[in-house]
Amino acid sequence: MTNNIAKKTLGWSIKDWIEFHQSVTADESFKQLQYLVECQQIAPTDPAWLSLCSADTLKKQWQILQHRSGKESLPLYGVPVAIKDNIDARGFPTTAACPSFLYEPEKDSKVVKLLRNAGAIIIGKTNLDQFATGLVGTRSPYGKTPCVFSDKHVSGGSSAGSASVVARGIVPIALGTDTAGSGRVPAALNNLIGLKPTKGTFSCQGVVPACKSLDCVSVFSLNLSDAECCFKILCESDLENDEYSRTYPRSPLRKFSDSVTIGIPKDLLWYGEEENPVLYDNAIKQLEKSGANITKIDFEPLLELARCLYEGPWVAERYSAVKDFLQKNPSSKGFDHVVKSIIDSAKKFSAVDAFQFEYKRQGLLQKIDKLLENIDALCVPTCPLNPTFEDVSNEPILVNSRQGTWTNFVNLADMAALAIPSGFRSDGLPTGITLIGKKFTDFALLDLAQMYFQIAYPNNSRTFGIFTEGVEINDDKVSGPVISSSDSIKLAVVGAHLKGLPLHWQLEKVNATFISSTKTSKNYELYALPRTGPILKPGLRRVNEEGFAIQVETYSIPVENFGTFISMVPEPLGIGSVELENGEWVKSFICEESGYTAKGSVNITKYGGFKTYLKFLETNTKTKKPF
Amino acid sequence: MTNNIAKKTLGWSIKDWIEFHQSVTADESFKQLQYLVECQQIAPTDPAWLSLCSADTLKKQWQILQHRSGKESLPLYGVPVAIKDNIDARGFPTTAACPSFLYEPEKDSKVVKLLRNAGAIIIGKTNLDQFATGLVGTRSPYGKTPCVFSDKHVSGGSSAGSASVVARGIVPIALGTDTAGSGRVPAALNNLIGLKPTKGTFSCQGVVPACKSLDCVSVFSLNLSDAECCFKILCESDLENDEYSRTYPRSPLRKFSDSVTIGIPKDLLWYGEEENPVLYDNAIKQLEKSGANITKIDFEPLLELARCLYEGPWVAERYSAVKDFLQKNPSSKGFDHVVKSIIDSAKKFSAVDAFQFEYKRQGLLQKIDKLLENIDALCVPTCPLNPTFEDVSNEPILVNSRQGTWTNFVNLADMAALAIPSGFRSDGLPTGITLIGKKFTDFALLDLAQMYFQIAYPNNSRTFGIFTEGVEINDDKVSGPVISSSDSIKLAVVGAHLKGLPLHWQLEKVNATFISSTKTSKNYELYALPRTGPILKPGLRRVNEEGFAIQVETYSIPVENFGTFISMVPEPLGIGSVELENGEWVKSFICEESGYTAKGSVNITKYGGFKTYLKFLETNTKTKKPF
Repeated sequence: MTNNIAKKTLGWSIKDWIEFHQSVTADESFKQLQYLVECQQIAPTDPAWLSLCSADTLKKQWQILQHRSGKESLPLYGVPVAIKDNIDARGFPTTAACPSFLYEPEKDSKVVKLLRNAGAIIIGKTNLDQFATGLVGTRSPYGKTPCVFSDKHVSGGSSAGSASVVARGIVPIALGTDTAGSGRVPAALNNLIGLKPTKGTFSCQGVVPACKSLDCVSVFSLNLSDAECCFKILCESDLENDEYSRTYPRSPLRKFSDSVTIGIPKDLLWYGEEENPVLYDNAIKQLEKSGANITKIDFEPLLELARCLYEGPWVAERYSAVKDFLQKNPSSKGFDHVVKSIIDSAKKFSAVDAFQFEYKRQGLLQKIDKLLENIDALCVPTCPLNPTFEDVSNEPILVNSRQGTWTNFVNLADMAALAIPSGFRSDGLPTGITLIGKKFTDFALLDLAQMYFQIAYPNNSRTFGIFTEGVEINDDKVSGPVISSSDSIKLAVVGAHLKGLPLHWQLEKVNATFISSTKTSKNYELYALPRTGPILKPGLRRVNEEGFAIQVETYSIPVENFGTFISMVPEPLGIGSVELENGEWVKSFICEESGYTAKGSVNITKYGGFKTYLKFLETNTKTKKPF
Repeated sequence: MTNNIAKKTLGWSIKDWIEFHQSVTADESFKQLQYLVECQQIAPTDPAWLSLCSADTLKKQWQILQHRSGKESLPLYGVPVAIKDNIDARGFPTTAACPSFLYEPEKDSKVVKLLRNAGAIIIGKTNLDQFATGLVGTRSPYGKTPCVFSDKHVSGGSSAGSASVVARGIVPIALGTDTAGSGRVPAALNNLIGLKPTKGTFSCQGVVPACKSLDCVSVFSLNLSDAECCFKILCESDLENDEYSRTYPRSPLRKFSDSVTIGIPKDLLWYGEEENPVLYDNAIKQLEKSGANITKIDFEPLLELARCLYEGPWVAERYSAVKDFLQKNPSSKGFDHVVKSIIDSAKKFSAVDAFQFEYKRQGLLQKIDKLLENIDALCVPTCPLNPTFEDVSNEPILVNSRQGTWTNFVNLADMAALAIPSGFRSDGLPTGITLIGKKFTDFALLDLAQMYFQIAYPNNSRTFGIFTEGVEINDDKVSGPVISSSDSIKLAVVGAHLKGLPLHWQLEKVNATFISSTKTSKNYELYALPRTGPILKPGLRRVNEEGFAIQVETYSIPVENFGTFISMVPEPLGIGSVELENGEWVKSFICEESGYTAKGSVNITKYGGFKTYLKFLETNTKTKKPF
């Protein structure tokens, strides 16, 4: 296989990989993956990789995949992925970037297992700030991962290596972890998507804890669709193995309203940085252009919560995670001295401190609830600075803590976050913004990001990691949550709720999902009801034999929202059942006889649907106007 | 005023007091309250009272009440109440049963303020296990409160005094606190209702913390109605003053289904006690008789959670609460030595311990969620034993810990509990059971208790505190939550959903509340639709002019449950709107024309309602049978 063949995979999305595999033989597929791995080198040569899969391990993974039934339809069939080295993957040592901590896990972590079940091929483990303690990416004895745009600048951490290998397009997705920003800061510094799900959404079983009560596994990707694909695969509760795992709501929010209210900090902290503020302001303008209401709010309760993380007892969770290891390895060989000093500081905290800070957190959460009462989402700079290695070396703690300004509070406040690119500085380095929502708004954040990209990057002008061209745009294929039929009601709408008509907002308000445009069975008549307000409404009449098929649109509405919808339906309309052309009965608007027999009612059945009738009216009015 | 007049108030319910005040002059009312207070004596004479209101304070309270507008309609107008002495009430010192801890609060705690706002008169503060640390009621330098049925037996704690003064009928309600059972154990030992609400429902502002993350204010009363009345008054979020305050759901569960599933412990722990098990088994039999499904379950995850409370770092919360006091009073003068030893044990716990036990708790909560997946409520013995003072003195820690077997886990598991009487032993001492539900099931627990009492105490045979006769039964006036119209949908039902008809269970399933039996406006006709299944259904037809009024029942359905209801409605029926006889339009069953015009449909308008028609059918069938 030539170098050319291998090179072409760089920057491929999940879709590209799957299409490639579909177009070649299994053997060619395998060779491509093999070549990809062979091209990689581990730290110190390439500090992003701590280990790569051996030829044997790769072959074994491939063979297992080949024996899977239905393998062709797996969402990650043959897609190479990278895993941060604090997450167990069988066949690879886990180091957490501490050589003496190294162990060979007997089994996959839950998230790696889910990726493999989805068809992924694990090609290597990536570098990190030791024990995921840092936001700089330099606290690793294996080497300091640079930003993909500059050898002098840090990649950001702690998930430094995972961000680097995705930004260079080696793999379309990589797992990171994110306790205080480790899955977001490296995304900003490498022009990537960094998805930090709602706490407890992805299992942390088989992950070396940083702060167990706050840890999240996170996803890096070049585009939104790949992030969402991975989110859907990993979103599975694991209540038996992870104390903090939660069951994701069955009807999660699909999108914020078109006039989403976004809170931004009243006072921004830039620590002397001058160019990033301009880029951030521009991003906010783009959001505003896309229809969002931007509101400046006082972030103080959130920033105070963030300070708790550094000043409070949560560091004891880090100590708790490595206590046994430390006791067995008192020499602290292989320990990064900054990380060691941080973890050692845990010893000074008592249980009383732990409870008192928890009281403080609870109080702040109440303030934050109030602050965010009328706010759908927040938008913050992902990190204020693009630090050089020298900056970090001069002030290892200070630079790190400044970088966490807008990330630290998120898990303490139980929020979801999505870090996305927002442009480049004049020195060629990227910056990013983070969209933050209340728990379980992960899908709505993806949708909001999609909206932002459409406005901010018209004509496919967005770049992905290091790739400025030749990469397919996959931001616009975000598909939202799949809501099961038992948790939703399928409703056919026939009148002013149709797409583009004046009551369609009522469907959006109740988080409805469009299913299809279809027709009723040939048992109906349609009437334009006498106008009683500004909005013209039709009424459907079931006539059994001599009827017609009427155009409808079907939607899925979460069952718990249906009451809100029906409370907006006035007489003589109601919600009953209607037969579709395929014989299926679904909930639908129905009309009392007293409605369509009232004076002024017009039989409009011949138009076959309400929209066609409206078009007729419009044309008619226009035609009539001159006369 | 004679002794007779005063005596008659003993055992009065809230209703009795309010009716009394309505029947006499304000001056007579005041004198009655004055006399009541004058009859009381504080510890050591009566160890239940730590302080009583002075003549001046009583007068002031009364005068303030007299100046309130609309005072006559206050739910606690002029009702005397007692407050556990770890809850601030202006005009009374707060001691938490530690003389050197005594302070004069500048203002009322939130719960006391709410009681006063509701018209209550605070007549005194009551004894407790010091700093609410105990379940025995003997850990107080002010004296040991006995059970109201025996001088040799403990009242139970920590809310010993509050239980004693309610059981003796001095006040109809008293506030306790309940961290690990302090509001339930004394209820069992004194033949009372002990309501321990869902955590965060009543504000803990102005309450001396025991374990701040677990503390609840609780209510003692003689009967269920008074407990519910007090619950409704105190159920008010206080997010600005109490970190753990929560907003109560706007449509809380009103009742469990008629075939409620109740989990009871597979293995009961009685520690040698022989008579209480018999009484407990009998109580379970009564519950079964009332229609409940009794299921034996393995309580181990709950018991393990309970053990965490004694073995784990939560004691650091107790230390945290009195840390400043201890530092200023190193002599520990006035400290109960058992309490002191418990609180001192907090010092050994580090922040690492605190986090590790929190991980354990989280893991157990997941197990408990699973265990209770198909369980509506639990029923446990409130406490296994009726200890004597001698028992406690011999084994102060052991007896205390055994008494908490079935109470300790409740707040750690975030559950609601209602302790209720369940009969008397041959030695004349009472026992009790506790109904436990998931968070925010407080109303449903009250309803369940009411159902239990109806079966277990037929013909008003239940006793109240020390009163075996002459006390009005007020268990059956539990009214359930008031759900605001903006959070519910008012629905008129016209057919098989009417009370007593075969689809009425669908209304119960969605937590519907009956509002009224009424009629539609005179614009309707009613048809018996052709039978399509086992259940006969009618269809309502609006006919504008020449129609009739049709009998309907209206219900309030929480808006979030309405979708579940409508998904059970088949064609040709639907939910639309109907006009009531008073001109109000409400949601209602409507029917498509195709339904009531179908072959086999019968116009039954002349019967005026579906039930009348059914009666006609029944009579008709009976009449016909002989022929």
